[in-house]
Amino acid sequence: MEVYDVIIVGGSSAGLPAAIYSCRRGMKTLVITKEVGGQASEAPNIENYPGFLSISGSELVKRFQEQALKAGAQIVFDEVVEVDERIVDEKREFRVRTLSQREYACKALILAFGKTPRKLNAMNEDKFLGKGVSYCATCDGPLFKDKVVGVVGGGNSAFDAALYLSSIVKKVYLIHRREGFRAFEKTVEEAKKRENIEFLLNYVVKEIRGDEFLKSVILENTKTNKTKELELDGLFIEIGSELKTDWVKHLVKVDEMNQIVVNLRCQTFYPNNDEVRPGIFAAGDVTSIPYKQIVVSAGMGAIAALEAYNYLHGIESKIVADWKHG
Amino acid sequence: MEVYDVIIVGGSSAGLPAAIYSCRRGMKTLVITKEVGGQASEAPNIENYPGFLSISGSELVKRFQEQALKAGAQIVFDEVVEVDERIVDEKREFRVRTLSQREYACKALILAFGKTPRKLNAMNEDKFLGKGVSYCATCDGPLFKDKVVGVVGGGNSAFDAALYLSSIVKKVYLIHRREGFRAFEKTVEEAKKRENIEFLLNYVVKEIRGDEFLKSVILENTKTNKTKELELDGLFIEIGSELKTDWVKHLVKVDEMNQIVVNLRCQTFYPNNDEVRPGIFAAGDVTSIPYKQIVVSAGMGAIAALEAYNYLHGIESKIVADWKHG
Repeated sequence: MEVYDVIIVGGSSAGLPAAIYSCRRGMKTLVITKEVGGQASEAPNIENYPGFLSISGSELVKRFQEQALKAGAQIVFDEVVEVDERIVDEKREFRVRTLSQREYACKALILAFGKTPRKLNAMNEDKFLGKGVSYCATCDGPLFKDKVVGVVGGGNSAFDAALYLSSIVKKVYLIHRREGFRAFEKTVEEAKKRENIEFLLNYVVKEIRGDEFLKSVILENTKTNKTKELELDGLFIEIGSELKTDWVKHLVKVDEMNQIVVNLRCQTFYPNNDEVRPGIFAAGDVTSIPYKQIVVSAGMGAIAALEAYNYLHGIESKIVADWKHG
Repeated sequence: MEVYDVIIVGGSSAGLPAAIYSCRRGMKTLVITKEVGGQASEAPNIENYPGFLSISGSELVKRFQEQALKAGAQIVFDEVVEVDERIVDEKREFRVRTLSQREYACKALILAFGKTPRKLNAMNEDKFLGKGVSYCATCDGPLFKDKVVGVVGGGNSAFDAALYLSSIVKKVYLIHRREGFRAFEKTVEEAKKRENIEFLLNYVVKEIRGDEFLKSVILENTKTNKTKELELDGLFIEIGSELKTDWVKHLVKVDEMNQIVVNLRCQTFYPNNDEVRPGIFAAGDVTSIPYKQIVVSAGMGAIAALEAYNYLHGIESKIVADWKHG
């Protein structure tokens, strides 16, 4: 069986930049991904990726893919379902099995399969994605200057989004299905002080309405089951993400949110102690990094690939640069 | 005096992306920089910044600048020489003074002024920069496939560069002014094993020759003072960098290489203990991150700006995302 130097699981904002760096370092690199794009490719208009005043997510990811292929990466479209570690000729090797029953081998593994934003499952939610519906206030907030928006959720993500948006938009409705919040008390207090944030508690969004663009939402009261229509220009859904890391939990440490724990060098850790896990690196939204931004993921992808190179070549990676004239 | 929300010191790979994110978060942002560009703008041909198959450093940085200005950043061309902290109306404020005797005030500070690669001061070194002379093997190595190159230096950077290049190029000469090395022993051993790495010890590069492109270098033996000419296609100068962090040492911790110590969130630390330094963030090459790559710096710039926002709004930043449906 052919043994790749590096297998990258995931082909989006972190995985493809990792592939670019990995190939340029001369490592035989395979990317296994369900699809090229991930969450990034759903964004209609990205204005915060340095280098482009405005670009669609699908176009940006297409560029990443082209660059990875040009650098020499192989990409297969499949889903990884299982991975294990073995020692072959006294060297660590990983075996990766996919949904389509194929098996691949590699010396180093980069986990970069991202996260999936949790959906409301409201009627027309997919239809209005990028047309008023957003899962990322940091990315899309500036598009709603002086408009009226809703934020759905009661955790820190929802409150952070509401506070941030309140400084840009005319009015924010914070829509939450219960009366209590999981967000930090201080953050909740701050939101209560803002004059342009109105709380709509015990409400869920049942339906999204509009024509070309979102125009209103239908809310249902969770206590009375009565519905009402609320006019909005935008709806930010901030009810968290799903991280599907169960299949790597036997190899690397994940936190209570199922995120893979990494350090500044994109190294991972053993599940049951704080020791660095040799040979497995992780980058992007699937990790414990709190910034789910394309440029952050891309930077981490580069780091993970350079660390994988150091690992394969027995180079002791240094956290400080060596600068003195030797 | 006008008080900015954020002042960013440095306008290159880290500072300009920080400005983009800072402005998009609605913070009044000033960038103070000696020049737009830094080291990145000297690269003639960047192939590893995700999104561009090939772009010149100056064009990429011009795009960063355009994007930062469009987002609302102010940029002044000046050099920061002094900064201090004071409490005004019970709030922390920083005062920044420049070479041209101007003073600016801000609530949060982002340090992103990069590093300067140390030069050999060989004749024609500047003339052939980007025409055979490079200060970054990771960036420019792939341009020298099957060619003959020299690497100057005796520390880890030089050896890492030599090992990496030896897998791409036909032959590597490692040129060092002494016989001993500052690099890790293991790395030196590995280099000695490579058949296409030849050591030229007790030599310094006096002059670089060529026409359009570098063709040879003049070496001088440090013991005998005799000179000889060596034909090369490229010369990688890996003798470290200068980090001019003296003026911030009273505020933040720097390591033995003069790099500003940061954590995963681009926070800094007090000089004399391990406590996080509120209000001061750092990103890019000036920090302790071991990867001096444009996309890594850009990702850190984004993180530093988002952290500055959280700091200014009293949001307790979390290292884990909040994903459960609240």
